[in-house]
Amino acid sequence: MLDWLRHYRRAALPGDIGAGIVVAMMLVPQGMAYALVAGLPPVAGLYASILPPLVYALFGSSMTQSVGPMAIVSLMTGAAIAPLAGGAPGLHGVLAAQLALVAGAVLLLCGLLRLGFLANFFSRPVMSGFTVGSSLVIAWGQVKPLLGGPLQQPHVPSTVLGLASLALLLLARSHLARLLKRLGMAGTAADVLSKLAPMVVVLAATAAVAAYGAHGIRLTGPVPAGLPQLNLATSPSHWRELLQPGLLIGFVVFLMSMSAAQTLALKRGEKLVSNRELVGLGAANVAAMASGAFPVTGSLSRSAVNFAAGANTPLASVISAVLLAAALMLPTGWLALLPLPTLAATIIVAVLGLLELDTLKTAWHYDRGDALAWLVTCVGVLALGVEAGVIVGVVLSMGTLIWRASRPHIAVLGRIPGTEHFRNVDRYAATRCEEVLILRIDANLFFGNVEAVNERIEDELRAHPATRHLVLTMLAVSSIDTTALFALSELNAGLRARGIGLHLAEVKGPVMDRLRASTLLDTLNGKLFLSTAMASEYLNSLDKEKR
Amino acid sequence: MLDWLRHYRRAALPGDIGAGIVVAMMLVPQGMAYALVAGLPPVAGLYASILPPLVYALFGSSMTQSVGPMAIVSLMTGAAIAPLAGGAPGLHGVLAAQLALVAGAVLLLCGLLRLGFLANFFSRPVMSGFTVGSSLVIAWGQVKPLLGGPLQQPHVPSTVLGLASLALLLLARSHLARLLKRLGMAGTAADVLSKLAPMVVVLAATAAVAAYGAHGIRLTGPVPAGLPQLNLATSPSHWRELLQPGLLIGFVVFLMSMSAAQTLALKRGEKLVSNRELVGLGAANVAAMASGAFPVTGSLSRSAVNFAAGANTPLASVISAVLLAAALMLPTGWLALLPLPTLAATIIVAVLGLLELDTLKTAWHYDRGDALAWLVTCVGVLALGVEAGVIVGVVLSMGTLIWRASRPHIAVLGRIPGTEHFRNVDRYAATRCEEVLILRIDANLFFGNVEAVNERIEDELRAHPATRHLVLTMLAVSSIDTTALFALSELNAGLRARGIGLHLAEVKGPVMDRLRASTLLDTLNGKLFLSTAMASEYLNSLDKEKR
Repeated sequence: MLDWLRHYRRAALPGDIGAGIVVAMMLVPQGMAYALVAGLPPVAGLYASILPPLVYALFGSSMTQSVGPMAIVSLMTGAAIAPLAGGAPGLHGVLAAQLALVAGAVLLLCGLLRLGFLANFFSRPVMSGFTVGSSLVIAWGQVKPLLGGPLQQPHVPSTVLGLASLALLLLARSHLARLLKRLGMAGTAADVLSKLAPMVVVLAATAAVAAYGAHGIRLTGPVPAGLPQLNLATSPSHWRELLQPGLLIGFVVFLMSMSAAQTLALKRGEKLVSNRELVGLGAANVAAMASGAFPVTGSLSRSAVNFAAGANTPLASVISAVLLAAALMLPTGWLALLPLPTLAATIIVAVLGLLELDTLKTAWHYDRGDALAWLVTCVGVLALGVEAGVIVGVVLSMGTLIWRASRPHIAVLGRIPGTEHFRNVDRYAATRCEEVLILRIDANLFFGNVEAVNERIEDELRAHPATRHLVLTMLAVSSIDTTALFALSELNAGLRARGIGLHLAEVKGPVMDRLRASTLLDTLNGKLFLSTAMASEYLNSLDKEKR
Repeated sequence: MLDWLRHYRRAALPGDIGAGIVVAMMLVPQGMAYALVAGLPPVAGLYASILPPLVYALFGSSMTQSVGPMAIVSLMTGAAIAPLAGGAPGLHGVLAAQLALVAGAVLLLCGLLRLGFLANFFSRPVMSGFTVGSSLVIAWGQVKPLLGGPLQQPHVPSTVLGLASLALLLLARSHLARLLKRLGMAGTAADVLSKLAPMVVVLAATAAVAAYGAHGIRLTGPVPAGLPQLNLATSPSHWRELLQPGLLIGFVVFLMSMSAAQTLALKRGEKLVSNRELVGLGAANVAAMASGAFPVTGSLSRSAVNFAAGANTPLASVISAVLLAAALMLPTGWLALLPLPTLAATIIVAVLGLLELDTLKTAWHYDRGDALAWLVTCVGVLALGVEAGVIVGVVLSMGTLIWRASRPHIAVLGRIPGTEHFRNVDRYAATRCEEVLILRIDANLFFGNVEAVNERIEDELRAHPATRHLVLTMLAVSSIDTTALFALSELNAGLRARGIGLHLAEVKGPVMDRLRASTLLDTLNGKLFLSTAMASEYLNSLDKEKR
């Protein structure tokens, strides 16, 4: 904890300060906009950007992660609380904070149970399909605020302002960095500055409203000045309903944050500790509850800017949190005049950055099954909603995992004539003795593949009906779980009944130690051999004797 | 389909007839008793024993499986419908049949999608813990009917009859087979005959009631004579509520049946086709719906008797179904006099057979983690109920699967001096060159382990800071999924930024074919080598040149 502070080098300071300022300026429009996505007053998004990143800086393990509000998690929050809060005023905020507490508690618990390996839950195609589907849902949800009314009945001044903001942001996105570079600015500085376009456009729109009036355009309305108050309010009757969305949100918070942090950690040659990430994100979400905000996570886009702007340590996040807190302590009257169509435009442009189709394209050429998983997850989110989309992703990932586990590689071995080498008969000109069937098992034996191993053994015995001895070559087997131990024992009993010997060859030391704690070796209907060659030689001579 | 009938040999007939008779006699008390466990009239259990096994004989792949009512599935059925049916008379039966339809549809769908590999879902300890927990719940549920009232206020005549039945059944279970053998009966015949004890005890109790009156003991009541009528009744408002229990029951039906059938298939050297089992069980459950019964599955205990009694083909099940149908077409007045305390005793003794602690004992000595999974699942069923118990089992199994997947074996290689062999430096006296780090990856690369592989690579690079070239030896890698492809590309980019070369050695043919469809090889920040030795030689000479 706070290792980075103990070993802080002064050389890291300028980068951290610069990144802190840039991220703070990104967070003002982003925080307010994502609060609206979650169905909350804009100030909640600013609160989510102060205490949570400070707490994450204490407990997390990533150096450049920017923890705070994030589009997809805000969408999930909104989807979870809207049906519960109904029209009750104030209940939205209470439930959103309570949801952050549930998600945070889930994450902390997983961290204490050291379940960080769950970061491997989603395959990249599933994650990407989920992100793209959710982004489309978010963008579609912003069409109405952008136009100041439904698609069929747009409010003209809102539409003009919204589309103008959108055009400016899109232009800045595609051309600003190039323009700044042409004007002589250094590459990275230009890239980073271009990320401040949303802040500039929002300020310009606010200034325009201040100067020329709102003309019926909806504004954010009064934003209370001052730091967030300690929030302990919960709705006791909603704990049960919040459990499932809290679990799913905690899960998505972890997966999203890990994939963002991982990308950057790799670039910096830095080690991410998944169990510490669980604790860091859990504590950050508890902090979100305490400051009356909503669920937070690490944001890939913001973290990338943080990194590019020169962040070396979590001090950058501390600085941006302090700046936001300072902004809230100054008069906040100007924030009230922020027009919602412009905020909607910033959201649409922000999620455009999440609409990457590279993963789908690569998967399509590389592995159609993975491409299908992408499509199913994306369509799942669009057709069934973001929460069901997560469940579709979980089911697909688990299905893939079991399917992969259930296909171990097994080879029939034969001897390369004139040598002591035994190789796969399908690939080499290797010769077999009819009575002795030698199978090399190229996978650890466990419950996920015992069935497949059994089936394959039966198939091979059927294909080689003269078999009197079955030899399993276990060089590649590093572990045998309890299920596989039982399966081996049952195989042994079955083969004994059919008059076929079961022999084991090249069993690894640690596996042998384990097997000695069981009764398999005592009841084995055959012998143990140090090498496949020794097994083959002994069994061949045995058969010759018999004749 | 019906392969067994086309190739039927006459020699198989006596065994099939004998087994058919024995199983029919087991099914009369069992079917009625398990219907009571499901909260249904006893005749539903007889219906569940006629059409479903006939349909399974058409579609299933096991030769000796006895499909019909089964204790744990009946318990799950009862748990699912009790809260939905409330006190509404007749609704129980409709919902139970509808539940069989949902479970059957799920199974058929899984069969059509060829999801048979899901049979690998539960580890043996999880399955065993679930079975034991459920058995205890069932036995506890029979205490009240056994005593004719609650534990504190037993009804004396019921208690006398119930305990007497229990004592007789327990005695038969432990001594009858031995006694029959001592009287000169052949071993298998004695074992099989002793399984008819429940039928005998039930007949004796019924005769006693007929002769001496009920004395307030509850009886089964009138059992309608005649074959089951076609049932198409459903409760349209309950589809949604039945979906989750239907899914869980379908899942348990498949797992229970597969594990029972697998044990026998192994003994007979017979191949079980999991996708056909899905279809067979699905069709059997649809048949259960159509005959107004409740969810059915393959029963381990009954199938074992079927096998021991000489069943060679599904004809045995056909015969027992025909016998039960015949019994229903004869007068059924005697069935009405069957005392419930005796039925409760047969249930308790039947589930005693499921209370095996061998798996726990073996796991305890062999693998504490597996023993823990057993205990958690068993306690889960006892504390949270049978449905939550299945979910606990799923979560545990999936957690184990991800955890196992996330721990690939990776070895740092060095050269055995004076040879071309490269081995794990931790186990052999192998020497390394400082600038070249060679890692052998002993697992297929996929989303479940890319994170772990990344972490390990970072650890090794940190441990070997002089590294200029990283060589990944891929001999044991048979597949790389899309997620791992991205991870390799990102590793490549990250290493390039840090001035470290990434080289691949001994890439298998099929893996190479796949990689050629991607951009990884074009952008590789290093070379491809046919062997580790060639990589080592080339890179060492490169470094010497530089100096």
